[in-house]
Amino acid sequence: MKKRIYLVLFMLVAMAGGYCLAQESKPVIEDFKPSTLNQPGKEYPMVNSQGYARFKIEAPQAQSVVVSLGLGGARGGTQLSKGADGTWMGTTAGPMDEGFHYYHLTIDGGVFNDPGALNFYGSTRWESGIEIPAHDQDFYALKDVPHGHVQQILFPSKSTGTSRRAFVYTPPCYSNDSKTHYPVLYLQHGWGEDETAWTNQGHANLIMDNLLAEGKIKPFIIVMTYGMTNEVRFGGMASFKIEPFQTVLIDELIPYVDAHFRTLADQPHRAMAGLSMGGMETHTITLNNPDVFSHYALLSGGTYKPEEIKDPSKVKLIFTSCGSKERPEGVLKSTEVLKAAGFNAVSYVSENTAHEFQTWRRSLKELAPLLFIDNKTK
Amino acid sequence: MKKRIYLVLFMLVAMAGGYCLAQESKPVIEDFKPSTLNQPGKEYPMVNSQGYARFKIEAPQAQSVVVSLGLGGARGGTQLSKGADGTWMGTTAGPMDEGFHYYHLTIDGGVFNDPGALNFYGSTRWESGIEIPAHDQDFYALKDVPHGHVQQILFPSKSTGTSRRAFVYTPPCYSNDSKTHYPVLYLQHGWGEDETAWTNQGHANLIMDNLLAEGKIKPFIIVMTYGMTNEVRFGGMASFKIEPFQTVLIDELIPYVDAHFRTLADQPHRAMAGLSMGGMETHTITLNNPDVFSHYALLSGGTYKPEEIKDPSKVKLIFTSCGSKERPEGVLKSTEVLKAAGFNAVSYVSENTAHEFQTWRRSLKELAPLLFIDNKTK
Repeated sequence: MKKRIYLVLFMLVAMAGGYCLAQESKPVIEDFKPSTLNQPGKEYPMVNSQGYARFKIEAPQAQSVVVSLGLGGARGGTQLSKGADGTWMGTTAGPMDEGFHYYHLTIDGGVFNDPGALNFYGSTRWESGIEIPAHDQDFYALKDVPHGHVQQILFPSKSTGTSRRAFVYTPPCYSNDSKTHYPVLYLQHGWGEDETAWTNQGHANLIMDNLLAEGKIKPFIIVMTYGMTNEVRFGGMASFKIEPFQTVLIDELIPYVDAHFRTLADQPHRAMAGLSMGGMETHTITLNNPDVFSHYALLSGGTYKPEEIKDPSKVKLIFTSCGSKERPEGVLKSTEVLKAAGFNAVSYVSENTAHEFQTWRRSLKELAPLLFIDNKTK
Repeated sequence: MKKRIYLVLFMLVAMAGGYCLAQESKPVIEDFKPSTLNQPGKEYPMVNSQGYARFKIEAPQAQSVVVSLGLGGARGGTQLSKGADGTWMGTTAGPMDEGFHYYHLTIDGGVFNDPGALNFYGSTRWESGIEIPAHDQDFYALKDVPHGHVQQILFPSKSTGTSRRAFVYTPPCYSNDSKTHYPVLYLQHGWGEDETAWTNQGHANLIMDNLLAEGKIKPFIIVMTYGMTNEVRFGGMASFKIEPFQTVLIDELIPYVDAHFRTLADQPHRAMAGLSMGGMETHTITLNNPDVFSHYALLSGGTYKPEEIKDPSKVKLIFTSCGSKERPEGVLKSTEVLKAAGFNAVSYVSENTAHEFQTWRRSLKELAPLLFIDNKTK
């Protein structure tokens, strides 16, 4: 029952889209530039240095064009206005939170994507995405450093009767020798997203490349797969069960990864983390499988209680995080309780972000240096 | 000058989208099913066993919704009609060619994608895609066979001042041992497409997996990168030059691939192929670099003349193909001329297809068994 409430919460928050409030009524600075997530060569949507977003849509005979972003003054979105040249334009009523936001257009009552923006899988569909430049964007920037590879694998899954897709990040050093074996982090997306989210929206590969180039972490492999294996996918919340995904992950994906990559294939060198609904999955699956994972991380995805953990000696790390605009009290309190019970527990709160990807990008950056630190690569 | 004419031709054909003619006026059979390229859980667009496509778009207050597919009776596309429930529906006037087609919607004068379909990069934008089931679709189907991996790499490019993306297909056996080295095919997309085309639209990885499972080819690596490095990208055809891309490919990508993958890093074990504009690039780059590539392939992308090739002893294979709805005479004739001049030349004509991906999927299937056959993997 508790699981269902979690899920409904995650869905509602995930579907709310870009969260913003027009807290200040400073004049809008006219330094708008194309969003970094625009399709090649596209000028709009644009963003300015304050975090406002501006949209421009061509649909000369349309009656109404609304962008799903920009609460505050224009609650429910940003209504665009038709100009003399037949294009529809508008600016959010206030600055948006830093980082990535999903959005879509409603044109004459129908839901479409912005032809100017790239698409990202969220809310069980490919949606438009926009990037509000963050003050700390450097940690996920594409830099002139050695880059790891992101491999699409198709692994056999008897339980679902098909070949399933996952993405595997291997660190830059992985292809330079043929002997070293590495620990593995299994990293899950949130409700309505899929296995593309952590690299497309999250820049997980660039975060890792940059941390490695700075010598801040030890190299490890990351595996990302699809976590919504049953009816929950399209809204059938009541039927959500962990078993179908747990079977795919534990009995099918992990053995495939261990057979096809140079992994350290044991519990001390395996971590699981997930955001939002992926955190709920991580919570359940790690507790069900104490001999599979040693490092646990929930990003805006709930908390652990000491009494849930049967054999504390097997747990190396419990990491819990969320945005400051979520409810950080729960995260902070539960971490204190875990610490008092003797666990290596760490909490992180992302400043001025909500239930969105900037929170999770930062969380991965904070989590990575804590993983596998007492291990040595073979 | 000749290059420019080629390019303009490729652009026009590429932009024409799904080519079809209502040759027969048989009654439409009501066995429509969701296209296999729909977004998860989406019912429309649908296709039937005859190759008709049916569309359904929600936009209750719109004045006009047109789908860019379906020549013949409804020249210029398929005009949808508004039903009593406010949704717009329509069926192509005739059957479409087998295979993959790009398309888009025009809603009240604006160009948008179909929310039901997945998007594919073509015509320098992410467009909707639809799949008309082909009689020979089995060769690119996802089957229960060992699957190779498709790796996204980011390789340093001094000439363009950034890290550039490529995708690398490694055969299933690649990750099973750490010693074998493999030949490499460099495979280029067409005008307006990018490095995602050959796996997304072309299913190049599945074609390889299936051919390998059937023992019809020897394993090799495929590398796919972006071939429109200068102004040609957004229509500046007059300024097209081969040098920027040639530098990226020859001086930057190939050395990176040879350093990070177990390749056979010499001319006899290197092939180049391209479709449409990528064929033009292949033609120029192979002739400019006789010591880099030994196997050449142009898919709907022009032909070779014997007198263009300075040292025939260095060329192991010349493969030329196109669809039967293009102009196969040129392909067939040039192959005869090459054969008469002593070259190992092979032509292939794809039946009942035009300048579209079904032609190129089939061409890859025909080309692969001819590559590197007199070589032994190390």
